[in-house]
Amino acid sequence: MYPKNAWYVAATPNEIDEKPLGRTICGEKIAFFRGPEGVVAAVENFCPHRGAPLSLGYVSEGKLVCGYHGLHMGCNGKTVSMPGQRVQGFPAVRSYPVEERYGFIWVWPGDAALADKATIPHQEWYDHPEWAFGGGLFHIACDYRLMIDNLMDLTHETYVHSTSIGQKEIDETPSKTTVDGTTVTTARYMDNVTPPPFWKLALRGNNLADDVPVDRWQICRFTPPSNVIIEVGVAHRGHGGYDAPNEFKAYSKVIDFITPETETSIHYFWGMARKFNPTDKALTATIREGQGKIFSEDLEMLELQQKNLLAYPDRKLLMLNIDSGGVQARKIIDRMLAEEQTAATAKA
Amino acid sequence: MYPKNAWYVAATPNEIDEKPLGRTICGEKIAFFRGPEGVVAAVENFCPHRGAPLSLGYVSEGKLVCGYHGLHMGCNGKTVSMPGQRVQGFPAVRSYPVEERYGFIWVWPGDAALADKATIPHQEWYDHPEWAFGGGLFHIACDYRLMIDNLMDLTHETYVHSTSIGQKEIDETPSKTTVDGTTVTTARYMDNVTPPPFWKLALRGNNLADDVPVDRWQICRFTPPSNVIIEVGVAHRGHGGYDAPNEFKAYSKVIDFITPETETSIHYFWGMARKFNPTDKALTATIREGQGKIFSEDLEMLELQQKNLLAYPDRKLLMLNIDSGGVQARKIIDRMLAEEQTAATAKA
Amino acid sequence: MYPKNAWYVAATPNEIDEKPLGRTICGEKIAFFRGPEGVVAAVENFCPHRGAPLSLGYVSEGKLVCGYHGLHMGCNGKTVSMPGQRVQGFPAVRSYPVEERYGFIWVWPGDAALADKATIPHQEWYDHPEWAFGGGLFHIACDYRLMIDNLMDLTHETYVHSTSIGQKEIDETPSKTTVDGTTVTTARYMDNVTPPPFWKLALRGNNLADDVPVDRWQICRFTPPSNVIIEVGVAHRGHGGYDAPNEFKAYSKVIDFITPETETSIHYFWGMARKFNPTDKALTATIREGQGKIFSEDLEMLELQQKNLLAYPDRKLLMLNIDSGGVQARKIIDRMLAEEQTAATAKA
Repeated sequence: MYPKNAWYVAATPNEIDEKPLGRTICGEKIAFFRGPEGVVAAVENFCPHRGAPLSLGYVSEGKLVCGYHGLHMGCNGKTVSMPGQRVQGFPAVRSYPVEERYGFIWVWPGDAALADKATIPHQEWYDHPEWAFGGGLFHIACDYRLMIDNLMDLTHETYVHSTSIGQKEIDETPSKTTVDGTTVTTARYMDNVTPPPFWKLALRGNNLADDVPVDRWQICRFTPPSNVIIEVGVAHRGHGGYDAPNEFKAYSKVIDFITPETETSIHYFWGMARKFNPTDKALTATIREGQGKIFSEDLEMLELQQKNLLAYPDRKLLMLNIDSGGVQARKIIDRMLAEEQTAATAKA
Repeated sequence: MYPKNAWYVAATPNEIDEKPLGRTICGEKIAFFRGPEGVVAAVENFCPHRGAPLSLGYVSEGKLVCGYHGLHMGCNGKTVSMPGQRVQGFPAVRSYPVEERYGFIWVWPGDAALADKATIPHQEWYDHPEWAFGGGLFHIACDYRLMIDNLMDLTHETYVHSTSIGQKEIDETPSKTTVDGTTVTTARYMDNVTPPPFWKLALRGNNLADDVPVDRWQICRFTPPSNVIIEVGVAHRGHGGYDAPNEFKAYSKVIDFITPETETSIHYFWGMARKFNPTDKALTATIREGQGKIFSEDLEMLELQQKNLLAYPDRKLLMLNIDSGGVQARKIIDRMLAEEQTAATAKA
Repeated sequence: MYPKNAWYVAATPNEIDEKPLGRTICGEKIAFFRGPEGVVAAVENFCPHRGAPLSLGYVSEGKLVCGYHGLHMGCNGKTVSMPGQRVQGFPAVRSYPVEERYGFIWVWPGDAALADKATIPHQEWYDHPEWAFGGGLFHIACDYRLMIDNLMDLTHETYVHSTSIGQKEIDETPSKTTVDGTTVTTARYMDNVTPPPFWKLALRGNNLADDVPVDRWQICRFTPPSNVIIEVGVAHRGHGGYDAPNEFKAYSKVIDFITPETETSIHYFWGMARKFNPTDKALTATIREGQGKIFSEDLEMLELQQKNLLAYPDRKLLMLNIDSGGVQARKIIDRMLAEEQTAATAKA
């Protein structure tokens, strides 16, 4: 169960630069391609001629040409032409609201009439001279909510990521969860700790000593349908912690766009936007590689957790204080699902 | 849904020369082996003793010996002997009408009483001094009718095989479909065109210039249950096209025997019989390699098309004039299926 | 269908020495680990916090620490502690009676109240100066009873293992099956035969000539739930066969502990305990390698037999005299299953 009336990240722009991309988003099989003037378009990945996947074709003059028999599909899901055929009577396929923004392709898999591009969440770090970004994509066989839980409860870093970003103080320091409208925030501030290896690397990346005590913070923010942005960083002790001037800290945002593929699988777009030394491309690559390695440590855990939950469907899981970020996020998701259900019933 | 009262190609002879072969044909699990005097036999791949697959055994004096406990199975599905056992009371397994002919092993998976070896379709090119043949076998996860559609509508060559046999004139030249009894023919004649790369190779193979205009033809013939033979070729312009003397053309038959394994998978026996330069074995190998590469380009398309059709079972596909070969072939198959259904009901 | 109130081999000790082990036994997902003082413990592989697999965690001071958020699980299935949490109210998970004995980890997947460690079958060869043991573990996709059948009817050696331990005299010599309580014995004595290759190797391993006639024996003993111990060996002709003094024979026990994973898959713990030249570790390695190769020859047969039986569920298999060992073993198993069923009904 996932909300469908929402903007989800479907791809990164480079994935559709060379050829069309077939990807399932919230159960919808979609072909993404660059239409006229390179503007992204999204239609059902199903040729109305014989059901071939349109994503195996190519783009010609802004039309998506089916790679089987040459039907030319328009961005609106209507057949434009086909060699030797009259196409007026051809059935249309669905097209989806889609937008390239902030370095991602966003798609709205639900009711197109409700899609408002103004609600695509603004990413302040994008294309900004003080920021640099690097990221990647994982496919994980788990319910998207398990990934939200994961990201809203960072005590798991102590265990899953013990050699990079974990440290015992995460477990020892209580977090605080607050809800503001549909935003859930879980924050933890750890003062006067030793930076773990990943943050030593980040400090050096900002030309700061890595062998001194730091204040560390983690501020996880969930916004619907399934975006989690985490403000993370460390500051040299005694300069104000989170509020320290940039020259005394390494400050980043962990970017997590979690897109359901099916009920039990996700496309996980992860990355890190950092607000220090933004022009150092080698640093971007190093951080990206480190983060990719860290995030890959979650995969086996999430996939086996998913299998366990499917095997024991009746078990009630605990909802501890460390889980409150995920719990609150699920309440907001449940509300969205109920609203979609009500709207669907009203229509029917 | 596939007709079972029909001859299907099950294997090539070399596949059973060394040891038995287990293969599923139209849902029937069959063990093929060489019985007395090397004559092919086919029995259920299920040992009446403990259900072991007989195909894992070996042949001894014309009997198929189970590789588990040594039961000797005869060509008729009756147990001949077993060490230390009286076998008269052993239950028989099915045997299947089977025949080695024209370089293939043919099997009749349906009612054995209806099998008439005289109806195995004659292959004029087989063992004929003017012809040479090379071919191969693909396993494809699609309904056998999708492959028939594929072969009866060669406009797909323009898209799927654009670098080898495709050319825009295929799309531009209408084809004509005719039905004669249970034979469906879809023919296309393209005059005065440039030969695409594969046909340049064939022209050179017949010691003909490859840089001159040619007349090209494609005459696809479906016969039940799922055989498609395609007369293909090019002739130097001005010598009569399809009717040109052999020394001015490169003329071949594409051989396609499509054997259902399950409802959604096939054994696809493909090949090319050429009527030029038949003794040149290197040419046979070159053509076989080229054709194998070309035909492998269809696999992903067919398998994803099949997945699409399973995901959207209610969608009606279009039936354009280019599809009429496949459409007419399906009508003939539907008639066979109805007849089998009627016969089965009458028996019950 | 497998008895659950029984001791099954779950693992070898080395599998849990370094880290916990997750393994499914009779449908139960179990995490095995070394608790206080290294004593083996077994609990459900499901963290009561969020359902993570406990086997991905680590052991700390005798507790199994969940690798996701640090819950400390005790050997009894009760949560001992968790950072920052009160755990008294946490739901317990199942723990399983488990014991390390005779070089294996044994588990009781059924009703713990019925588990009596005294009923773990004694292995006389274990840690005995006159014996040496080597073995391994295979995962096979078949019902555990197919493996019992396999081991209680060694006529298959003639066919499956023709190049190592098979010989025609196995087929030619009748076996005799007897039942004593819940023990089924199928014995075969072959006098004055040529030793097959594996037994030549064993004779040489005991510094005996391998080119002389031998008496050979195979005494298969099934005990519930699914253990098959086979006394095997050869003695130089004229010294009393099975009863010959040790210096004239090569005598071993084939050890087979067959543990159901699911209805159609097993963990197969195989090995050989030999009562000759026990200090020769190179010989142990050679025999282990040879036996592993021989036993791997059964895998494809068993897995395809299982597929055949699933495909033809209504077929009655034959029960010949050679099958009587397996038939009698299944009767004992059926009785255990009926008793468990009766007990379960009485409770309900």
